[in-house]
Amino acid sequence: MDRNDFRRQLAQQLRVDSIRSSAAAGSGHPTSSMSAADLMAVLLDGHLRLDFDRPANPANDHLVFSKGHASPLLYSCFKAAGAIDDDELLSFRKLGSRLEGHPTPVLPWVDVATGSLGQGLPIGVGLALTARRLDRVPARVWVLCGDSEMAEGSIWEAFEHAAFWELDNLIAIIDVNRLGQTGETMHGWDLDSHAKRALAFGWEAIEVDGHDVEAIEDAYRRAEQVSGRPAVVLARTKKGRGVAAVEDQPGKHGKPLDDAEEGIEELGGVRDLDVEVAVPDGDVERHRFEAPGGERPRYEVGEEVPTRKAYGEALTALGDVRGDVVALDGEVSNSTYSELFRDAHPERYFEMYIAEQQLVATAVAMQRRQWTPFGSTFAAFLTRAYDFVRMAAVSRADIRLCGSHAGVSIGEDGPSQMGLEDLAAFRAMYSSTVLYPSDANQAARLVELMADLDGIIYLRTHRGALPVVYGPDEEFEVGGSRVLREGDDVTLVGGGVTLHEALRAAERLAGEGIEARVIDLYSVKPVDAETLVRAAAETAAIVTVEDHWPEGGLGDAVLDALADSGEHFRVRKLAVRTMPGSGSPDELLHEAGIDAEEIAAAARQLVETRTTA
Amino acid sequence: MDRNDFRRQLAQQLRVDSIRSSAAAGSGHPTSSMSAADLMAVLLDGHLRLDFDRPANPANDHLVFSKGHASPLLYSCFKAAGAIDDDELLSFRKLGSRLEGHPTPVLPWVDVATGSLGQGLPIGVGLALTARRLDRVPARVWVLCGDSEMAEGSIWEAFEHAAFWELDNLIAIIDVNRLGQTGETMHGWDLDSHAKRALAFGWEAIEVDGHDVEAIEDAYRRAEQVSGRPAVVLARTKKGRGVAAVEDQPGKHGKPLDDAEEGIEELGGVRDLDVEVAVPDGDVERHRFEAPGGERPRYEVGEEVPTRKAYGEALTALGDVRGDVVALDGEVSNSTYSELFRDAHPERYFEMYIAEQQLVATAVAMQRRQWTPFGSTFAAFLTRAYDFVRMAAVSRADIRLCGSHAGVSIGEDGPSQMGLEDLAAFRAMYSSTVLYPSDANQAARLVELMADLDGIIYLRTHRGALPVVYGPDEEFEVGGSRVLREGDDVTLVGGGVTLHEALRAAERLAGEGIEARVIDLYSVKPVDAETLVRAAAETAAIVTVEDHWPEGGLGDAVLDALADSGEHFRVRKLAVRTMPGSGSPDELLHEAGIDAEEIAAAARQLVETRTTA
Repeated sequence: MDRNDFRRQLAQQLRVDSIRSSAAAGSGHPTSSMSAADLMAVLLDGHLRLDFDRPANPANDHLVFSKGHASPLLYSCFKAAGAIDDDELLSFRKLGSRLEGHPTPVLPWVDVATGSLGQGLPIGVGLALTARRLDRVPARVWVLCGDSEMAEGSIWEAFEHAAFWELDNLIAIIDVNRLGQTGETMHGWDLDSHAKRALAFGWEAIEVDGHDVEAIEDAYRRAEQVSGRPAVVLARTKKGRGVAAVEDQPGKHGKPLDDAEEGIEELGGVRDLDVEVAVPDGDVERHRFEAPGGERPRYEVGEEVPTRKAYGEALTALGDVRGDVVALDGEVSNSTYSELFRDAHPERYFEMYIAEQQLVATAVAMQRRQWTPFGSTFAAFLTRAYDFVRMAAVSRADIRLCGSHAGVSIGEDGPSQMGLEDLAAFRAMYSSTVLYPSDANQAARLVELMADLDGIIYLRTHRGALPVVYGPDEEFEVGGSRVLREGDDVTLVGGGVTLHEALRAAERLAGEGIEARVIDLYSVKPVDAETLVRAAAETAAIVTVEDHWPEGGLGDAVLDALADSGEHFRVRKLAVRTMPGSGSPDELLHEAGIDAEEIAAAARQLVETRTTA
Repeated sequence: MDRNDFRRQLAQQLRVDSIRSSAAAGSGHPTSSMSAADLMAVLLDGHLRLDFDRPANPANDHLVFSKGHASPLLYSCFKAAGAIDDDELLSFRKLGSRLEGHPTPVLPWVDVATGSLGQGLPIGVGLALTARRLDRVPARVWVLCGDSEMAEGSIWEAFEHAAFWELDNLIAIIDVNRLGQTGETMHGWDLDSHAKRALAFGWEAIEVDGHDVEAIEDAYRRAEQVSGRPAVVLARTKKGRGVAAVEDQPGKHGKPLDDAEEGIEELGGVRDLDVEVAVPDGDVERHRFEAPGGERPRYEVGEEVPTRKAYGEALTALGDVRGDVVALDGEVSNSTYSELFRDAHPERYFEMYIAEQQLVATAVAMQRRQWTPFGSTFAAFLTRAYDFVRMAAVSRADIRLCGSHAGVSIGEDGPSQMGLEDLAAFRAMYSSTVLYPSDANQAARLVELMADLDGIIYLRTHRGALPVVYGPDEEFEVGGSRVLREGDDVTLVGGGVTLHEALRAAERLAGEGIEARVIDLYSVKPVDAETLVRAAAETAAIVTVEDHWPEGGLGDAVLDALADSGEHFRVRKLAVRTMPGSGSPDELLHEAGIDAEEIAAAARQLVETRTTA
């Protein structure tokens, strides 16, 4: 069998195995797999360099299925490469199988979870950038995209960044099968339409018949030779290719073939070809950065420092002692203070411009390659990347994000710039840690701790200066809290700016003979349930106060800690309940009912009514 | 003064007023305003057709500042047009002023809040689409964009859709002042680079010197004459134009001039020119659609129907009786069942393809023009548009969103497709209502109610069929709940699929002599506190159960309702706590610990330990 015949037979096998696995599962996307089978057959046989036995080899190419629903094809490739056996292939979509409905890194050859369209390419850009600028290895990144997902804005963030960073180690393959889930895409089979966009964004674009293995070979060779810019192979294909009942037919998305046996027969039956996927040449060492050493910043008690500034200074110091720490920002580094890291460690700083989705995607890619990324922008603007954070959790990624300019306390800029839902959004993420420092020393220590945590780690910082209340050597733990003032009448729980308002409220209350306990709940998730339960038991009521909407944030974290405790407790949640406008920070805190005056009023009222409770 | 001189003087006035208002505020973005002053002067004087006295006139043009931080320029335009006076101009950014740091619809001539970059253009596309396809009026939409925001993917969703819908009533003006917040943009002053992209996406692109009023006049005329496609005017400008201390200087973003007086003098001093903005010709009636009339779908008790199907059927019926109802979907209409509406009301259905940000942006635009939009996609994929939902709340928009395929109960497709954070995300939104029906009749009734609610309305639907438990004439209220089973030992609170699991658990418990009260919490926000407080008082404990992460969802809504009640209560929250994989719905519900068996176990344990509480 000559090479072209082998590739054609291999492609048929990939189709057949896609049909078989989907039939065994009773669900799946065989037709979306069949369109790209020839593209994958040629890739596996001669282009991809991936040592399946050593998936962590830094020289390995990466293969990302941005069209994650074509998982039957990906798993059929793994089988053909000898990485999984036929029994496992047929476990597709069954409970406990590594072969989930959409790929996840439960499989060692899957870098990231896909299945939310428009994410694989941005992460592929991140992998290529990591290979080029951090690992400094010759690995290539291949990304298979669907044509439907070209409608996602995130795809164009990726196109822009790939060209900007001159990533000629990135090749995107677009499987232009023309049919989306419900009908034709905006561009159908108009490959030129896609090519024009790619060229305009600074890529090389190569059009090809996606079912002609010789033409595909030629296209890949050309793509591999492109220098100084990324390349996209635009392949005209047919969905369901090779089986008349489904080929280029509408209404055949996302379901097994009605007659799998017939389809398999039409494709020439079951095959058992093995493809020898190339392994990378020799061993490469990934680059490591020198860490000159340094000290965590120290702030004096009473000094007024914004926690965002402490973030920047602590991150810079962390970069001094750890060469694996890298930073990314969404073109607001002078607001988040990540500019300090940029200036100190320019090779490890990545300007993502105003493209928050690409920012998170790049962080996900970098952590996959054992780097320790910290990404920052305004807390409000991290909402732009919420789906990317969601999928990062499915990828079991370890990423650190800092959202600055939290809450109404930013003042005059107004609500569009205020992060008021960030605690809720990040709490409701699998694997997340949510930290909310109230002073600079605490923020600096938490930044250090973040570097070694797993999962989605979120740090909320404030714009305005806050007085330092902790000494520079004070230790903090994730999941801890601090009782900053003892008292048995009522408990005030705050974080960030509201901790300071709570302290001021406690002063006022003391003048009235009410002793308030004040808890700094700097770790919103996990939360220090023990301290909260004790406060519930020992004081008449708890007032929680947060510069955040009432739902899902600090107050709800307190309630969650107490819910099943068996203690009798009463909690009043103070939070932002009306849409703020512009104003000074103090005016807006007051208007929102979360300043010292309002906290004291709530506490007073609860103490006065305690006998009726 | 000839017209060009007038325009030049007007532009200087806009600059001076931008400086004055920012100086009075002590903050703001004068330099980002100054770059676009000539562009706005020519627009106001001869191109914009906007009756400031009748902002609701359907024939009015729309002016959207996608670069919302240039608010000083926008407000200076309003002053020059006589819409606000100088006193109000100088109230910029002060508490209670309509002139917030970034524009919001508190001002009647502002269609939508901006300030999160990359949103104004997508909403402008929505406004142009609404004018063309719904209102059917000759209004034109002008959108002023910054060059930094061209890096946002959402901008390219907008470019794609504007061309796809052939919106020649849309003109984007890009203020290419080269400088972002921290440095130069990716393309600097390379106008060709921007033009190539626009042309490739099917737009007309016109390059112009953005400080030459004659050239701008010519560019606008050309743009107005473009037919069959949108036009973009790419204007080369200088940030801080006209004041040497800040003109084209780095580090001058987002702050008042150090010496405002000097800058004003350099610009020729304070002026008081009035510009006569054209009003639209004659009166136009906006188009209204016939509503043939029809009936809400009815389901028989015991029938098994997915709530997503009830959504589609009820929405279609609603379209039968209300011509203002429109639907949008993200290319999954056969999954969300919005395809039923599409087939029945094709002129009022908008396929947004896989571009969730553009989907929400279009809905925001449509409601601004008094339409009643319902947008749908998988609940998981609404996370892609979270920032757009956030800004819709700042816009005080009334939009209705349906997220289908909620939770692990979707089964085999795996976690990338499971909405597990949607309740938390939507609860933590200003003005939101969160509904979560458990049967088809309830879903249908809630869809009807959604049409008349204000704010961000979210409906969560399930993939799988659920038994109908309510009769077709049962009434439901937003903020209500249903006690489906009485009992005084323990309370089980569920919603959607978990309500059915709770009912089954109650059956089992009854067999053991434990009487469980079962509450259907179909309205997660607002929540029926009265019923929950009564349950807390009358039963030993409450078990909440939700097909959602533990944070911010149904369980937290219950805790919030009880927190300040003074009742002694104990709540155990059952929710999804480990990352699901693939499997059958029943397997995954069990594995997550939210099926009848696990609910019964939790209830049993709480009842057994009640004396120790």
